[in-house]
Amino acid sequence: MTAKAPVEFYFDFSSPYSYIASEWVAAVAARHGRTVSWHAILLGATFQAAELKSPVSYPVKREYAMVDFQRSARFEGVPYRQPEPFPIATQNAARVFWWLADQDAARAAVWAHTGLRAYFTRGVALDKPEPLRGLCREAGIDPDAAEAAWSDPAWKLRLKAENEAAIAAGIFGAPSFVVDGELFWGNDRRPQLERWLASGPF
Amino acid sequence: MTAKAPVEFYFDFSSPYSYIASEWVAAVAARHGRTVSWHAILLGATFQAAELKSPVSYPVKREYAMVDFQRSARFEGVPYRQPEPFPIATQNAARVFWWLADQDAARAAVWAHTGLRAYFTRGVALDKPEPLRGLCREAGIDPDAAEAAWSDPAWKLRLKAENEAAIAAGIFGAPSFVVDGELFWGNDRRPQLERWLASGPF
Repeated sequence: MTAKAPVEFYFDFSSPYSYIASEWVAAVAARHGRTVSWHAILLGATFQAAELKSPVSYPVKREYAMVDFQRSARFEGVPYRQPEPFPIATQNAARVFWWLADQDAARAAVWAHTGLRAYFTRGVALDKPEPLRGLCREAGIDPDAAEAAWSDPAWKLRLKAENEAAIAAGIFGAPSFVVDGELFWGNDRRPQLERWLASGPF
Repeated sequence: MTAKAPVEFYFDFSSPYSYIASEWVAAVAARHGRTVSWHAILLGATFQAAELKSPVSYPVKREYAMVDFQRSARFEGVPYRQPEPFPIATQNAARVFWWLADQDAARAAVWAHTGLRAYFTRGVALDKPEPLRGLCREAGIDPDAAEAAWSDPAWKLRLKAENEAAIAAGIFGAPSFVVDGELFWGNDRRPQLERWLASGPF
């Protein structure tokens, strides 16, 4: 029997809906015999490629989003505290992710949870070196090695390549899920994703 | 006992997700002892007010949307055939809606279904006088009276006022639902809307 393809999960460390989805995606996938392949990306890069702007850059949408982030988190039973400032630059956290991913995919997934939960429940400033180093320490990651990685042109290039691969795969927002070649965009596509996982194309 | 407030439902005749939601909103509301108050609006007006553009004006999003419209319709068990051209101008259909609404809210709701189903299952050109007159005939509405209404500055002004009222209520897209003062945007907020209707604020 061939193993089923993993759920490809694209997220940005500063995306509220990515955070909410990150809390259910592994359990939902496992229920249907799938694993999750995690992809840290930068929404700034995918927005630019698609000539989009962040929804929260529009005042009216931002006002709604600030209600909807919290309500959507409560709906999924996920703790949420709106961080300020928001959004923030997440390239360092994402580079640490890919640096870990090359060593051990499971450790990278743990780092994804660590970063997302830290920002969205405690407002930890993932965009600042000291808080990010502190978070590495909490997660049992050597902060000097992590900082060396996020400062290293090689990991900068790697993240750029991952963003480009996501864009080539049609990703224009986060969270996005690709399963059996089918793209689902948004935390709110959970019911459709679950139906696909349960019974295939519909 | 005070009657519960209706579900305020904002839709545009050219919005696929509005069409999908229009097929479930009345049944969902009724299950929770609510009626639906229908509001035909022009997305062009709400987009302009919020400085937004239609998602399908971005090529990458359009490509995804063309898949997602059909998939979301199948998910809800609603027949759907992508109309071309799309989107279209819907002010005449919307003016007929408000002209009917002032006589009989139930007839206006029937007209909403008639127009949405005609465009999204048969590609009827709601933006053209003759097809729109034909649709009036099908719906038992005098086409001459309807055309007089959609050409009348009074009903143009009425639709403009309804768009402005929607914008003032925070509406920036369609479908939108307001229940007990809480705004939900998108066909994909159905699960949250249902939870709210079932058990109130969460």
